[in-house]
Amino acid sequence: MAPLDDSFHVFDTTLRDGAQREGINLSVADKLAIARHLDDFGVGFIEGGWPGANPKDTEFFRRARTELELKHAQLVAFGSTRRAGGRAADDPLVAALRDAEAPAVCLVAKSDIRHVERALRTTAEENLEMIRDTVSHLCAEGRRVFLDCEHFFDGYRYDPAYATRVVETAAEAGADVVVLCDTNGGMLPFQVEEIVAEVLAATGVRLGIHAQDDTGCAVANTIAAVRSGATHVQCTANGYGERVGNANLFSVVGNLQLKMGLQVVPPGCLEQATRIAHAIAEIANLTPATHQPYVGTSAFAHKAGLHASAIKVDPDLYQHVDPALVGNDMRVLVSGMAGRASVELKGKELGFDLSGEKQTLGRIVERVKDLEARGFTFEAADASFELLLREELDGSRPRFFELESWRVIVEQRGDSGEPVSEATVKLHAKGERIVATAEGNGPVNALDCALRLALERMYPDLAQLELVDYKVRILEGSHGTGAVIRILMETTDGETEWSTVGVDENVIAASWQALEDAVTYGLLRQGHGAR
Amino acid sequence: MAPLDDSFHVFDTTLRDGAQREGINLSVADKLAIARHLDDFGVGFIEGGWPGANPKDTEFFRRARTELELKHAQLVAFGSTRRAGGRAADDPLVAALRDAEAPAVCLVAKSDIRHVERALRTTAEENLEMIRDTVSHLCAEGRRVFLDCEHFFDGYRYDPAYATRVVETAAEAGADVVVLCDTNGGMLPFQVEEIVAEVLAATGVRLGIHAQDDTGCAVANTIAAVRSGATHVQCTANGYGERVGNANLFSVVGNLQLKMGLQVVPPGCLEQATRIAHAIAEIANLTPATHQPYVGTSAFAHKAGLHASAIKVDPDLYQHVDPALVGNDMRVLVSGMAGRASVELKGKELGFDLSGEKQTLGRIVERVKDLEARGFTFEAADASFELLLREELDGSRPRFFELESWRVIVEQRGDSGEPVSEATVKLHAKGERIVATAEGNGPVNALDCALRLALERMYPDLAQLELVDYKVRILEGSHGTGAVIRILMETTDGETEWSTVGVDENVIAASWQALEDAVTYGLLRQGHGAR
Repeated sequence: MAPLDDSFHVFDTTLRDGAQREGINLSVADKLAIARHLDDFGVGFIEGGWPGANPKDTEFFRRARTELELKHAQLVAFGSTRRAGGRAADDPLVAALRDAEAPAVCLVAKSDIRHVERALRTTAEENLEMIRDTVSHLCAEGRRVFLDCEHFFDGYRYDPAYATRVVETAAEAGADVVVLCDTNGGMLPFQVEEIVAEVLAATGVRLGIHAQDDTGCAVANTIAAVRSGATHVQCTANGYGERVGNANLFSVVGNLQLKMGLQVVPPGCLEQATRIAHAIAEIANLTPATHQPYVGTSAFAHKAGLHASAIKVDPDLYQHVDPALVGNDMRVLVSGMAGRASVELKGKELGFDLSGEKQTLGRIVERVKDLEARGFTFEAADASFELLLREELDGSRPRFFELESWRVIVEQRGDSGEPVSEATVKLHAKGERIVATAEGNGPVNALDCALRLALERMYPDLAQLELVDYKVRILEGSHGTGAVIRILMETTDGETEWSTVGVDENVIAASWQALEDAVTYGLLRQGHGAR
Repeated sequence: MAPLDDSFHVFDTTLRDGAQREGINLSVADKLAIARHLDDFGVGFIEGGWPGANPKDTEFFRRARTELELKHAQLVAFGSTRRAGGRAADDPLVAALRDAEAPAVCLVAKSDIRHVERALRTTAEENLEMIRDTVSHLCAEGRRVFLDCEHFFDGYRYDPAYATRVVETAAEAGADVVVLCDTNGGMLPFQVEEIVAEVLAATGVRLGIHAQDDTGCAVANTIAAVRSGATHVQCTANGYGERVGNANLFSVVGNLQLKMGLQVVPPGCLEQATRIAHAIAEIANLTPATHQPYVGTSAFAHKAGLHASAIKVDPDLYQHVDPALVGNDMRVLVSGMAGRASVELKGKELGFDLSGEKQTLGRIVERVKDLEARGFTFEAADASFELLLREELDGSRPRFFELESWRVIVEQRGDSGEPVSEATVKLHAKGERIVATAEGNGPVNALDCALRLALERMYPDLAQLELVDYKVRILEGSHGTGAVIRILMETTDGETEWSTVGVDENVIAASWQALEDAVTYGLLRQGHGAR
């Protein structure tokens, strides 16, 4: 592995280009939190946004000065070249870039002559002058300058001479790296490989790559550019970005480091990829993509019965890299398809040795198959699976109470009033009958509150439990509210998280099942003996 | 474009390898329905499953004989080479393959000597004999035989001579195509390109490619193999598959046909890609991946204010292909980030000319920003956005009734009884006060039923409306049931679908908002005049 220095740049643009993704809306606090995670991952540069164009981004750079201590990364302010016909020194957007006080600046410029003429509505020469003026102005102000050539590949294919002049002009004016952008994302790897090699040979300028994923090849295009000599890669966490997205930071770094032997983030950082990928998704309020390379929860999960039995023999034959290298885990999915070998492995993962329990194993497989047929899933509900396993091993389900009944009422008066949710739970625990009623800001919350209220005198530790995620899935998609509903619930006691599942035609009833499992599992974890 | 004949194979394995994806569970009816869609897309081969190993797959091939009429595709049965030490003619799994009566068979065989020795626990020679015997037996039975070389690339890198012998042995025994599989998915495109070229040069055998996506390069690896001479590509719809997934059929065909000039599906088929991709996701009961290349709803969506204004000038400068070529649409996202240009374009898409309405446009942008800050999203709720637009254009919101109150009660007695859901709606419509109570299989269904019951005498057409999808999202992820809840609802009148949004702390109240919008929009569509 080559030493880690300025000779190769991992440049992250999650906070700027990633924020263009449909469904993302980041607050300034979100951006600061994501920047800290990116720094932990060891990227060299974090593009924070476009100060001046977006008030939130101006605010981000202001707060970053006092609130953001970076260990590895330098902050980069994004902006465009000055307006046509003006001077960089007088341009208000260039001033905002300067005032952001980031050590580096990434300027976007047109490099496709058609965009210069039709979108920018200026001349080929004036566009070059805008680049020259803005780059040299910011260099004189002490900034390190990178230049993003927007629509470079389309532009190069249409008019290679002009696109090449843009690269040369930027470098002559003082840009450290000229980044070739596949803005429309239409390139394939062999095209990128060829064009990057040609531009490098023609100009000798240090080149970067910025790939969008519209052909599904952003990661491969980034790799192809590196093979042709690019030494600066622009990526986003989890591939977030406009339209289909950008090159996925974790896939690119995983491939460069684990497959191509380039040390591009500091030692110890890649091992945090999975944790960081998930944390950033949570901050962005997106469900972590379970099927993304390296860091998805499915990335090292095995379902097929064919494989599951062989994996027991020799895991390295069935995974392309050791999942620990990216902080992930080999995981065996419990599924009716997989049969005994999978259930046995899953049990082992949870700390139960089922190897000698042939009959029990058979019963568990049958129950899992049956419950899956009714809409349950245990792939994402380890705690419910463990309760099922204990039930089959011990002969009875762990229980801390007997339910008599529950009831939820939600009522709204008038068009704009606040709805009122109230739940009543009647149950028997430790020989007592308990009736508890609680209000909540919704029916499940009211039910959760009523259940804890009922149990809290006997189990005060229940107060530590918090419901942290709640997913609703309609099964048999074509029947709307009339279909079966699956609830996945994530609960934490501050130390660890566990997930439970409930299935019913009725969303409240399904939630009750998941809630009951969550509380039962939590009490078991706290060391309480079930009756 | 080259003529479409047997010289290039698009081979789909959604029903076999795709079904290994975590979270997928296909019934036989699902598989038949998906096969029809794949045939509409014009693939040459549909791998239906593993008869004999999986009772569901045996059943699939049995029913396919009478229930599946294919226009373009041939059905393929998947299976493995015979057991070590036996004879293909006596092997029960080989018999099941024969009995499936599919015109083609795809056999999987080991080609990595380490797998032969450690997982299969047999000798190098016996593995070759298993291939020779099974391939020639099935050829003699009149089947066209393809051979999947499992773990080919890993095996070739470890022992190229043995991996090459596997290819030669299969071809000599009568296999039409030998498919090189990157089973662990760890390859990068330049490696695939090199190895496929070497194997082709060494053997002259017709080669195929089967790529898994563990490096995020499955599509690029498939393209790379084709550039090196492979003429058979194995893919899955939407990239479904074990772990991270397989090469995405729609991306691969899009790239081959639109970027590389190879006509690989019949004329008129690629234009159905978006519809078919979504239909298959729905059958598989997975949310269609909004960010997938070519066919995702975000694939041609534009959010950035920077772009949205320029797109009005010249859309072709901002998209890598015409979305109509894959049956998709250019779409402008409504988002606080984007500002006036986006709202104006979105309005135009919905049939409202806002170009002269500067003040109205300003008010709409402000309201969208405000509502988005409270958790609403209009990116996926066109009908709610249209109602907002009409309200601002007409000065008042279209309304068909005044709500007095609604109430929902859900109650369960005992641990295993059925919960009862009941809703009461009180409202005023056409001068009358109406009180309606209905039961449902859940609270939202009860509310939906009560609302329609209340309105049905005045608007009998309401009976046509059906709620087809219902998505619940918890916003501000770390507060569990205490957080804000966003409901997205999809409603149909049999002809078209529309989506509406509701946001509240309370799941029932949020559902009520989406329900009210859905019914209001539906009545407007049916031509009723609101008061």
